[in-house]
Amino acid sequence: MNYPLDPIAVIRSPYREKFATPRQPGLTPSVRAIVEFYPGFCPPEAVRGLEGFSHIWLLFLFHQNWQKGWQPTVRPPRLGGNKRVGVYASRSPFRPNPIGLSAVKLLGIDCTEGRATLEIEGADLIDGTPVLDIKPYLPYGDSIADARGGFAEKAPGEQLVVEFSPEAMIDLQHYQAVSPRLKMMICETLVLDPRPAYQRNDNSQREYGMLLEAYNVRWQVRENVALVTRILPAE
Amino acid sequence: MNYPLDPIAVIRSPYREKFATPRQPGLTPSVRAIVEFYPGFCPPEAVRGLEGFSHIWLLFLFHQNWQKGWQPTVRPPRLGGNKRVGVYASRSPFRPNPIGLSAVKLLGIDCTEGRATLEIEGADLIDGTPVLDIKPYLPYGDSIADARGGFAEKAPGEQLVVEFSPEAMIDLQHYQAVSPRLKMMICETLVLDPRPAYQRNDNSQREYGMLLEAYNVRWQVRENVALVTRILPAE
Repeated sequence: MNYPLDPIAVIRSPYREKFATPRQPGLTPSVRAIVEFYPGFCPPEAVRGLEGFSHIWLLFLFHQNWQKGWQPTVRPPRLGGNKRVGVYASRSPFRPNPIGLSAVKLLGIDCTEGRATLEIEGADLIDGTPVLDIKPYLPYGDSIADARGGFAEKAPGEQLVVEFSPEAMIDLQHYQAVSPRLKMMICETLVLDPRPAYQRNDNSQREYGMLLEAYNVRWQVRENVALVTRILPAE
Repeated sequence: MNYPLDPIAVIRSPYREKFATPRQPGLTPSVRAIVEFYPGFCPPEAVRGLEGFSHIWLLFLFHQNWQKGWQPTVRPPRLGGNKRVGVYASRSPFRPNPIGLSAVKLLGIDCTEGRATLEIEGADLIDGTPVLDIKPYLPYGDSIADARGGFAEKAPGEQLVVEFSPEAMIDLQHYQAVSPRLKMMICETLVLDPRPAYQRNDNSQREYGMLLEAYNVRWQVRENVALVTRILPAE
């Protein structure tokens, strides 16, 4: 028997593509996203009481991987991308049922215009991600302080130092009024080193680009420094 | 667009029916359950590395509520059953997508006969529950020590004292060899007071029954004491 599930909401996020989207929530506190409920799923009373919770669970679909299949083992980026673990021992998006799970900070609830939207912090989600469920984070059942974490005990932490070229600094000033958190968002994202594991020892000064909000952010990596070279409008 | 999801596994649990099944995981440590993967979803390598994690997430379906519909507000038992909160501010099983989320202790992994099964502790799950996904519990992303918990800050705690009648003590001795944890399972389950909120002030000495493993457990409540009167075979 299979169970057809309809998304209740969609994520509006500054991350426009999979590359550079953080792999865990909570690492990019300057990044804000919106949970936009679909009509029929968002009467304001459906979020009554949610304001008492500091964090919520998002159950979402890795929609870009929908029907791309799965393998019994995966190579987590946290293990350098060259060691295999079982798919159920990982949070890989390539799973039999590609459902993602993230605990995120709830910043605000907006019920104007007769429908609810939620503002959340630090989400690891691509713009357009379909949401299956929203649940309150219950500390006594969900926060297990003494849990052992296998190969991923600690947060990934800072991988790179982020610097800006003179041109990029001028670009930032240009967008400052419209996007006051842009510099912080770029720093928090690039410090995690979004490059695939197999490129991390590549010193060819390859130029990388990511779409962030309405911007095309360009950077290069040399040793442990990510140098942002330009911030251009995304077309 | 809707997304058809196929369960990857099924829960084998001593709880045979919704009544008396705990509403949160972790409250009944003597109760063990099995995650039994379906063929095709359980090659042993799919759980490689999972033994390094002390806890796992279960994403499952509240299958007994499938297509029973939902309301924007629910009355959580934790609020006495008479105050309404939004469905997204609750863990109610009556949700637009009836997916449940539980963090449980992983006791063991069995890969004999070429397929994996998992033994878990203290699950709040009915026998036969379909499982959509198994994920490792990652403390640094999932354990948020300073989260605020709205109306459900603390674990429910002990509601009743559990006592056994002389007849029930004889029944227990009778089943001791087959079910050595039966007494503890009964105690841990009844101490939570499974009665619906509206019956909690009822002193009519109504007799209650629950199916637990192969047993039909009978009890009465007087003041703050649950008195187990008999433990019978469940037909």
